[in-house]
Amino acid sequence: MRVGIIGGTGDIGEGIAMRLSRITDVCVGSRDLSKAQGTCDACLMSAKECGVNCSVKAGTNQEVVEQSDLIILAIPFKHLKTTVESITGWEGKIVVSPVNPMERRESFVYTPPPEGSAALYLQKILPPTTRICTAFNNIAGNRWCDITTELEYSVPVCGDDQEAKQIVMSLVDRISSLKGYDAGPLSSSHIVESITPLLLNIARFNKMKDVGIRFV
Amino acid sequence: MRVGIIGGTGDIGEGIAMRLSRITDVCVGSRDLSKAQGTCDACLMSAKECGVNCSVKAGTNQEVVEQSDLIILAIPFKHLKTTVESITGWEGKIVVSPVNPMERRESFVYTPPPEGSAALYLQKILPPTTRICTAFNNIAGNRWCDITTELEYSVPVCGDDQEAKQIVMSLVDRISSLKGYDAGPLSSSHIVESITPLLLNIARFNKMKDVGIRFV
Repeated sequence: MRVGIIGGTGDIGEGIAMRLSRITDVCVGSRDLSKAQGTCDACLMSAKECGVNCSVKAGTNQEVVEQSDLIILAIPFKHLKTTVESITGWEGKIVVSPVNPMERRESFVYTPPPEGSAALYLQKILPPTTRICTAFNNIAGNRWCDITTELEYSVPVCGDDQEAKQIVMSLVDRISSLKGYDAGPLSSSHIVESITPLLLNIARFNKMKDVGIRFV
Repeated sequence: MRVGIIGGTGDIGEGIAMRLSRITDVCVGSRDLSKAQGTCDACLMSAKECGVNCSVKAGTNQEVVEQSDLIILAIPFKHLKTTVESITGWEGKIVVSPVNPMERRESFVYTPPPEGSAALYLQKILPPTTRICTAFNNIAGNRWCDITTELEYSVPVCGDDQEAKQIVMSLVDRISSLKGYDAGPLSSSHIVESITPLLLNIARFNKMKDVGIRFV
């Protein structure tokens, strides 16, 4: 299975690319091809240092969607609309949203669109056959990038397409010590997304760093 | 410090009473005094079996509020308004809300009131000097009641009164292996409350039981 990462040049995108390219074929996309190539180089160099295999290549966002079975949208909510609408060929693809609409005010606040969540907003702007799931919403960018750290988190996966959800959960289970959980329909995605501002507040108010969750 | 439990005759209320009465003075309230007495008897018997001390007494809901410094509202959301409005003397009290407004449809759904959360609704109907915090929202009733089980969960505590929040967090830290975390202002309580339907869905869709959370 080829996994595409749109926004693979941000913190989280690069960290996901680094970890995923060691276990499956990854295609990193960016508006700026040279930036995508930079992420690929970082993945290849890191894999070489560790003496492990790595399969990663760069492309435009359009190429990434065309060439991938599953696409992770590692972009901020404010860029979701422009990015998604600048690309065609979403039909039938599995689209994974780790996107959390939020703002930093006196504390971090969850700021979903009128649809109820970023994932439900995606459902509105993507073709109806797109198989949308949420995943990876609650893992800090720093932890993704620090490849030597085991990721010992639970990953709730929401979605309405059962087969797509199983595929996403299986992929999650292959990354570090992550464990995927079926967290119900896409209409529950607002809960999963809102956990991230909660975790950021908990980190801030309890002097912790990069807080994640585990279901126990 | 005397802790009052309103609704101490439900699953969660009785479990909280059982564990708290071993570490502090507890007053259990109910509309039906004999039911409150039943919870007290259960606490006393269980403590005797374990050979530990236990301080618990029964009262009407009104007596519980009058005689307690901190009151836990262990009641379903639908009974919150009638119960709270039938009692006077809330001024200056610390009120802890473990209340999660939710419904079971095809999956469990978070159904907050227009105020945004049960805790914010409480803020509206209680006197302005009441010191409202959320706590204990995400722990299953079964786990509370099984007194032999260590509760190894994280407990996010929301509230706008810093001193009250510290008192609640200290209380949380004394119960089993629970650990309290400052989870920000009361306006973030909707996130904490919504985690409960998420956990119920995760239990259901992943064939698990009594799922809780830990911040890691």
